[in-house]
Amino acid sequence: MATSDFQRARSVEQKQQRRDEMLAAARKLALAKGVRTVTMSDIADDIGFHKSAVLRYFETREAVFLELATVGWVDWMDACVPAIHSSAGDPSRVARAIADTLTQRPLFCDLLGHAPMNLERGVSAEAVQQFKVIVLDQVDRFVQAATAALPSLTEADGRALVTAVCALASSLWQVSHPTEPVAALYRSNPHLGHATVDFAPALYNQSETVILGLLSRRLTPPSTN
Amino acid sequence: MATSDFQRARSVEQKQQRRDEMLAAARKLALAKGVRTVTMSDIADDIGFHKSAVLRYFETREAVFLELATVGWVDWMDACVPAIHSSAGDPSRVARAIADTLTQRPLFCDLLGHAPMNLERGVSAEAVQQFKVIVLDQVDRFVQAATAALPSLTEADGRALVTAVCALASSLWQVSHPTEPVAALYRSNPHLGHATVDFAPALYNQSETVILGLLSRRLTPPSTN
Repeated sequence: MATSDFQRARSVEQKQQRRDEMLAAARKLALAKGVRTVTMSDIADDIGFHKSAVLRYFETREAVFLELATVGWVDWMDACVPAIHSSAGDPSRVARAIADTLTQRPLFCDLLGHAPMNLERGVSAEAVQQFKVIVLDQVDRFVQAATAALPSLTEADGRALVTAVCALASSLWQVSHPTEPVAALYRSNPHLGHATVDFAPALYNQSETVILGLLSRRLTPPSTN
Repeated sequence: MATSDFQRARSVEQKQQRRDEMLAAARKLALAKGVRTVTMSDIADDIGFHKSAVLRYFETREAVFLELATVGWVDWMDACVPAIHSSAGDPSRVARAIADTLTQRPLFCDLLGHAPMNLERGVSAEAVQQFKVIVLDQVDRFVQAATAALPSLTEADGRALVTAVCALASSLWQVSHPTEPVAALYRSNPHLGHATVDFAPALYNQSETVILGLLSRRLTPPSTN
């Protein structure tokens, strides 16, 4: 669609459709080249709108991606909670449920790292509040599922677990998705091999480690001697 | 110093001194307002140079902060390795050694999150290589200390541990240092209380959990039924 074809959306339905188109474009571009590099102009160009049209819907690029992060949290829990429930009683399978549902969501893993560092700093406090309220609800869903599946875990353990797996997914995703020049560097320098990370097995192993650590603390208090 | 006072540094010593002044200014500004917001112009203004003078020493702001991250890794290991050694045999004290030495280095914790996400993407592949070589040496120092202090841990466990504590320190630091508008939001909304994090105890608890998890896997293989 040429920029000149743009007409202002009039109805509520039209406005919602425009908004959805912008979010879909942002999602597609971020999956292709990483959240960090996508600008408002990229989003506008992709759907054939002028940048000013996009700015009528979203105050900043951070607002676009914070909305995708919000949707991403609900979508992750919609998959993760039943996967945890069907793994009840088995720490390794619970870890697999958490890690697999994250691995299947590369954009969400990318967004997890950007949310506190970049996204929450580029929007209004009201937008952060809306985001936080929904995230905290999703965290509660996670905690309920994890403590039901592994009853030795306390509520605090469940919160620590979701904090840890999100930190690990976020960090491992960034490290395992370097820019092409850095990836080429790794390929040409075998002694940099330890700097490379295979995301899915690393996230699974780390998630299992955290669960085993939380369980071991409940079963045998750590030695203090 | 007024910008007009600037004279190009001629000797190797003068050049090193200029470079050190720029790094010191970047460190001071980043500690005061966070790595994310410090620009090359801020650094230049702080030391009374023109921005073009700073650009003769560092290709981008990312190059400045990648150098501070490099120095930060060596500085962390200089403190962490002896602290781990003096905690040998006690998982909780090893966790304390790791978490305390990170907590004492707020700029490094901030930089840890920025390195893969932002810093490595704003410099040449050569600069990334120099950074990686030094980081991998520091990781080796960590692994040797951790496996000596807790001999049930394998080398792979040591690498998983340093990956996890860096991911946790980075993520917890960002979450526990929101912008002032977001901090005000937390204070005024008690139901957002679970979104706030107290960095030092959270990092200690998470580090201990990961160590206990790694140890429990070595002592009793996880159940697969």
